[in-house]
Amino acid sequence: MKFEVIQKSGGSRARLGRLFTPHGVVETPCFMPVGTSATVKAIFPKDLEEEGIKLILANAYHLLFRPGISVIKEFGGLHQFMGWDGAILTDSGGFQVFSLSPFCKIFPEGVRFKSPVDGSILMLTPERAIHAQMELGSDIVMSLDHCPPWPSKEKDLLEATRRTIQWAKRGKETWMQQQEKVFSNPSAPYSLFGIIQGGTDEKLRLYCSEELMKIGFDGYAIGGLSVGEPHEESLAVVETVSSFLDEKAPKYVMGMGQPWQIIQMVDLGIDLFDCVLPTRLARHGSAYVEEGIIHIKNARFRKDGSPLDSRCSCYACRKFSRGYIHHLLKSKEILGIMLLSMHNLLFYNRLMKEIRSFLAHGQWLDFLARWKDKKLTK
Amino acid sequence: MKFEVIQKSGGSRARLGRLFTPHGVVETPCFMPVGTSATVKAIFPKDLEEEGIKLILANAYHLLFRPGISVIKEFGGLHQFMGWDGAILTDSGGFQVFSLSPFCKIFPEGVRFKSPVDGSILMLTPERAIHAQMELGSDIVMSLDHCPPWPSKEKDLLEATRRTIQWAKRGKETWMQQQEKVFSNPSAPYSLFGIIQGGTDEKLRLYCSEELMKIGFDGYAIGGLSVGEPHEESLAVVETVSSFLDEKAPKYVMGMGQPWQIIQMVDLGIDLFDCVLPTRLARHGSAYVEEGIIHIKNARFRKDGSPLDSRCSCYACRKFSRGYIHHLLKSKEILGIMLLSMHNLLFYNRLMKEIRSFLAHGQWLDFLARWKDKKLTK
Ligand SMILES: [Zn+2]
Ligand SMILES: [Zn+2]
Repeated sequence: MKFEVIQKSGGSRARLGRLFTPHGVVETPCFMPVGTSATVKAIFPKDLEEEGIKLILANAYHLLFRPGISVIKEFGGLHQFMGWDGAILTDSGGFQVFSLSPFCKIFPEGVRFKSPVDGSILMLTPERAIHAQMELGSDIVMSLDHCPPWPSKEKDLLEATRRTIQWAKRGKETWMQQQEKVFSNPSAPYSLFGIIQGGTDEKLRLYCSEELMKIGFDGYAIGGLSVGEPHEESLAVVETVSSFLDEKAPKYVMGMGQPWQIIQMVDLGIDLFDCVLPTRLARHGSAYVEEGIIHIKNARFRKDGSPLDSRCSCYACRKFSRGYIHHLLKSKEILGIMLLSMHNLLFYNRLMKEIRSFLAHGQWLDFLARWKDKKLTK
Repeated sequence: MKFEVIQKSGGSRARLGRLFTPHGVVETPCFMPVGTSATVKAIFPKDLEEEGIKLILANAYHLLFRPGISVIKEFGGLHQFMGWDGAILTDSGGFQVFSLSPFCKIFPEGVRFKSPVDGSILMLTPERAIHAQMELGSDIVMSLDHCPPWPSKEKDLLEATRRTIQWAKRGKETWMQQQEKVFSNPSAPYSLFGIIQGGTDEKLRLYCSEELMKIGFDGYAIGGLSVGEPHEESLAVVETVSSFLDEKAPKYVMGMGQPWQIIQMVDLGIDLFDCVLPTRLARHGSAYVEEGIIHIKNARFRKDGSPLDSRCSCYACRKFSRGYIHHLLKSKEILGIMLLSMHNLLFYNRLMKEIRSFLAHGQWLDFLARWKDKKLTK
């Protein structure tokens, strides 16, 4: 078994689970810090581990160009390369090809695009995407999808969805053929997840979900959200798809992860989340706190002797003040970004611990009501 | 007693000592990581502490403008502000005023210059320099000196030396008047060091040393070196001054600290060192290793699976390869600078531990000979 639901909340789809990976057991609902280029920006892996973070996300797309999959393979795989002993989920690159590569061209066999590093022409196929992630040694591999922009014409959306299904099928075949060859211990619970597309068209989303379940994956991701559509529409898609999907499999909503969004989606039965915001906002000088997001560069924090968040017990909050971090940011000191990155990631980690704790005690609805009162109106 | 010499090496001036500060005991010879703007760049204080680093340097000059001494005072002093529980030596700002402030003008009462932050006109006097450092709560306060450029005319050098002596006298008076008022526990061993100037003129250096010893300081620093003069001349100055100075006081050579320079100066009886190079070179992508300095961005490290330095047991070397750090630097990832900063600082720390260990075992000359064979020729 690769995933088990430990406890379900009454009156909600929210659930507590455990995901088994070759690099440890991950408790869900879980937020994955994003380590795009084989690094969660500005933080030591040891500091993530110390805080109980078990699963991070990396991007096969970025690693294709730099340093190259074969280089990482020579280093003994991505875990070894980046000094991370926990589990890794890798994105296939579908989202990145379509959102970051202006010269991409789609063919039935895959997608052609220009390397942003050296301008060379590359072809990403569903087979190559699976191979690459297996060579990286990812604990959770994502199939290649076609992520359409928002808004898209009905016809384009249908085409992207059909292509996503086709590619998922070919990815699964590759996975089945390669698994014993590539993974030294084929009984270890490496996982392959399918990605559901279909824009904000709920019928297309259901169609895609159904086809992917026929192919059969270890988990299901909802991709193509948070690309500009109204939040209510994304939530509607998540609700529709989540209630349709196999309850025994883990469910992952990709790239959408403001704290209040996570809480809404946990309530809809989602188990996995990722988002670049905690580390990106840190680099922009912002901190997640109980009340929302504060901009530490603001002059009002210059003499503020309180910690970033008085509820937080992270190193940044135990030892340093808002005023000091303000000073560091004003002085363009890297330590300012390091402290904010640590705090923001641990803010998320604490949120997920709280969520799991309320779920474990059968008090999810209380937690949700508390948050709705305080936060969801914002 | 604020300083004790534990062991002297036969056939050399090298010595093992202990410096007592309100924030702990510092074993000497000691290298101080530089924390100019109240941060040792790109490293958490906890990681410095973990490796046994007890004393760092900060610059009163930089803190004058940002965030301002009064702000740090409001935060409870520099230790509290920057989350550092070890000892701090602060430079007075003399060197920085003369080297970083193009519009500085010298008067008998002090030096007038433009703030690099907001362009306002500031006056730094020997009294103000002492007050400022006492308000910061520095464990070791430096008197204000006039650091002349190299080369300087004989007349200018004499004038700068005389002024340095005058300022040292006024600084000491301020220190005596203020000590009980400012430090809550006047019996705690806060220290005031004098700075010896005189360029490469050995007679002037001796004159300055003699006058400063008459005033009486807890320790003596040799300033105004490493400003462009040939290394042989700096060493000659260090040798002359070190053999003249009171053997009971700690001796500090400011701002000159390549590993082989440190070894040469330990041999001349110097106890304290500082240098920005370990962290500055880290930001430029370079690492200190047994064989010298290597530039990790160089293409030859792309597939290098070995640690930065196979002799090193720091976190960067235990968990990461040169190839990974190469990748981080190429990807402009902050983690690359973090790992190199940690390694370089710990390279220095290990060097100092080795030096102290050889001194403790009465084997300094063996250590020196080994280094001369291998390194000092470079
Ligand atoms: Zn915190
Ligand atoms: Zn190292």
